[in-house]
Amino acid sequence: MTASLPDALVLPAGDAHLREQTTQSTPLVSGDFLHMVRDQVSLPNGLHARREYLLHPGAVMVVALLDDGRVLLERQYRHAVAHSLFEFPAGKLDLDEGVLPCAARELREETGCLATHWAVATRIHPCIGYSNEVIHVVFAKGIVMGEPSLDEGELLDVCAATLPDLLVMAGDGRITDAKTLAGMLWLQHVVSGSWPLVWSELA
Amino acid sequence: MTASLPDALVLPAGDAHLREQTTQSTPLVSGDFLHMVRDQVSLPNGLHARREYLLHPGAVMVVALLDDGRVLLERQYRHAVAHSLFEFPAGKLDLDEGVLPCAARELREETGCLATHWAVATRIHPCIGYSNEVIHVVFAKGIVMGEPSLDEGELLDVCAATLPDLLVMAGDGRITDAKTLAGMLWLQHVVSGSWPLVWSELA
Repeated sequence: MTASLPDALVLPAGDAHLREQTTQSTPLVSGDFLHMVRDQVSLPNGLHARREYLLHPGAVMVVALLDDGRVLLERQYRHAVAHSLFEFPAGKLDLDEGVLPCAARELREETGCLATHWAVATRIHPCIGYSNEVIHVVFAKGIVMGEPSLDEGELLDVCAATLPDLLVMAGDGRITDAKTLAGMLWLQHVVSGSWPLVWSELA
Repeated sequence: MTASLPDALVLPAGDAHLREQTTQSTPLVSGDFLHMVRDQVSLPNGLHARREYLLHPGAVMVVALLDDGRVLLERQYRHAVAHSLFEFPAGKLDLDEGVLPCAARELREETGCLATHWAVATRIHPCIGYSNEVIHVVFAKGIVMGEPSLDEGELLDVCAATLPDLLVMAGDGRITDAKTLAGMLWLQHVVSGSWPLVWSELA
């Protein structure tokens, strides 16, 4: 049967047969942090539907390469899933903040580390079903320790792991955070040389 | 500086210094699909905070291995991010539905495919900041084509790609869905033999 399936690489670039048009957008709730909207949409086949999702300012995740070959990792309690999880340092973009300044700020605030070299790798969507969040994946190297400046309500462990150790932790279920697993796919291909990065110095 | 950072593999298993306790939970909104709550929590340092997140029934993602070496892929318009995205087939668990029955149902409904062999690989958290969603990652093989049975409001392309092609699409930014990228990390290590699966037949 498989011969009848088209190849993803040769699907038409256009998506007019899939694309929805928004006809109405209504705010549903604005919390301290989460903002939900409900849109009315029209489908290419003429039908109508309702779509609910969260508005998110976007975020940055930092894969910080230490000189000893390890990568920075955090462990943080995540109330929504009621577990302490390992993850790469990450945080939301402030209003009008650029990706690299945000990456440097989050890394400094959460881990105390500074970096001399930065590279934007890609952007990922953590939650395409119900959030417009985009996470910019940024690599950092030339890491120098400083002092963390966490909010008093922000508690986390900072630690480090080699790529082989990260893979062991993913394989045995100790790393379950999807953005971190996606970052590990990138890390693996950056380390192997198959997905080269363009590094720049950040003043 | 890096010598002063603890190793993630040897961090204490206990997380009492991170763990939050819920003191109150209030529903904020129940939409057609999304349900938001706000919890009051107490932190280990005695402070209090508010946490908002979405309640989600959990989901299953299927990495379906075709006999010709390709993997099933869908392309679907995702209103929240306003793009058509490539992703592995996935869907929400129905009430009291098991992981493998859900995987078989979603694969059949969305792609028309049946599978003879199934293996649960892992579970991932797509959105630990603001959703309790867990996605069970399931592999399928022995794929036989059937007829899709999509809802009339559900429009998607079904296609297939080899692992090398998937990696090209991730590396050049055509695959940005975090669950799919996490699934690709698994696929890569299943194919290489480093993360073996335990297969079973589903009646």
